[in-house]
Amino acid sequence: MKYKMIAMIPARLGSKRIPKKNLRYLAEKPLIQYPIDLALQIPDFESVWVNTESVALGKAIEKMGARFHQRPEEFSADSCTNREFTYHFMCHHECDYVIMVNSTSPLLRVETIHNFLQYVNENDYDTILSTVSEKAESFYHGKALNFDIHNKVNSQMLEPVEKTVWALTAWKRSTFMELEQQGQCPVFGGKLGTFPIPKDESCDLDTEEDWRIAEGAIQARQEAGKTAPRYLVLEDLA
Amino acid sequence: MKYKMIAMIPARLGSKRIPKKNLRYLAEKPLIQYPIDLALQIPDFESVWVNTESVALGKAIEKMGARFHQRPEEFSADSCTNREFTYHFMCHHECDYVIMVNSTSPLLRVETIHNFLQYVNENDYDTILSTVSEKAESFYHGKALNFDIHNKVNSQMLEPVEKTVWALTAWKRSTFMELEQQGQCPVFGGKLGTFPIPKDESCDLDTEEDWRIAEGAIQARQEAGKTAPRYLVLEDLA
Repeated sequence: MKYKMIAMIPARLGSKRIPKKNLRYLAEKPLIQYPIDLALQIPDFESVWVNTESVALGKAIEKMGARFHQRPEEFSADSCTNREFTYHFMCHHECDYVIMVNSTSPLLRVETIHNFLQYVNENDYDTILSTVSEKAESFYHGKALNFDIHNKVNSQMLEPVEKTVWALTAWKRSTFMELEQQGQCPVFGGKLGTFPIPKDESCDLDTEEDWRIAEGAIQARQEAGKTAPRYLVLEDLA
Repeated sequence: MKYKMIAMIPARLGSKRIPKKNLRYLAEKPLIQYPIDLALQIPDFESVWVNTESVALGKAIEKMGARFHQRPEEFSADSCTNREFTYHFMCHHECDYVIMVNSTSPLLRVETIHNFLQYVNENDYDTILSTVSEKAESFYHGKALNFDIHNKVNSQMLEPVEKTVWALTAWKRSTFMELEQQGQCPVFGGKLGTFPIPKDESCDLDTEEDWRIAEGAIQARQEAGKTAPRYLVLEDLA
C-alpha cells in the first residue's frame, strides 16, 4: 500500500432508538465486536482504533484486540456528527487516511473492506463514501428522477441512484484537518468519490425490526448451503 | 369502500436468477403462498387472482384459496413487463382498480395492504406505486442529489428519495385500458401517486443472498420478543 491507513470505529454508549446498541448481542457477539473482528483481519490497516467516550468500553474493546481512543464526552452527544469526533481523532493519530468502519454495518465482508482499501490506495480522493447502487424507479420532490413515465423499461436498464450507507468512509487526513481548521465542513470535503458495496452487506440498525432482520441475515448466512432448497411440487407439471 | 378493487398476483414459472422462485419454500411456505395468504385476509378485495401462464400452478393456487387467471405463454417471457400481462388481465376482469400484489415482497404486512387500499379509496389517482422513503445522502449521475457537500446534517433532516419497490401497485382499470388502447404506456399513466411502505417490509429477491436475508427476516419476526436482549457487561461501567 502506498498510503498509511488506520481504522477508526466510532462507538458511543448512548444510542436513542436501540438502547446500548454497541453492547447488545447481535447473534453470537456484541455489535461492537463485528467491525473490530473485521478490521483486525485486514493487514493493510496499520492500526485499529475504537473511538469512544467510555473508559469502560475502552477496556472491553482492548480485550477484543483493538486500541482505545478516548473522545471527549461532549462529542458523543446526539447533536454531534462524525465531523467533531473524527477531527479530534485525527489530531492524535498521524496517517494518510482515516478509514471509518461503522459498527452499524455488521454484514460487511472482509473482502469488501479489502476492495475499498485498494480503491483508496489506487486513487487520489480526499473523501470516499460507501454507497449502495439502487436501480429502481425513483422519485425526488415528487417527480420521476431516473425514469420516463411514458415508457416502462426493465429496471436493470435504469440509471442508478447511489445511496450513502456509512459502512466505510475514507478521509485523507491532511485535507480533512485543513478544511476543519479553515472553518469549512470537511465531511464531504475535497475530491469526493463513491464506492458501491454489495447491497446485502448494507443494513440499517435504526429500529428493533432492523435489528431482527440483521440477526436473521447473519444466521441465514451461517446456514447458507447447508440445506437444499425445497419446492412446491406441482401435480401435472410437464 | 367506494371502489371495487381486485387483487392480481403475478406468478410466472420461469425466473432467471433464482430458479422456480415462486414454488420455492421461503421459511415454512412456498413464496407464491405469501401474497395469497395476505390478500385473502383483506375483505376489501372483491377477489384474489393469481396471473400465471401455468395450468399446473393455477391448480395449486386454487387449493390455496386464490383464483386462477391464465395469461398467454408469451406474456411470461423475460422481455415482457407488467404492462402486457396486466392489460390482458384487465380485459377479462371488470373492476375499478386492479391492485398488483407481488410475490417478491413476502415481508409485507396485512396492515400495510389495508392502509394502501384506504389511500387508493380516498384519493383519485390513476396509478399508485409503493415506495420506500430513503433519507440518506444520495448521488445521481455522480452528483450530490439531496445534500449539501459543504454541510453535514443529521440524515433525518435530508429530503428523502422515494424508491419504487413494486410490492403494491394500484391501477385504475379504465385509465390503464384507455392508454393501452391509444398505444401509450399505461404503467405510470394518468395521475401518478406514491405510497411509502415501511422499509422493513420491502425486500429484494434477486439473488440467493437476498433470499437468505428474507428467510432470516421472517424467522426473526417470528422469534420477536421471545428472548430478551443480551448485553456485553462492562466491568466498571458507572
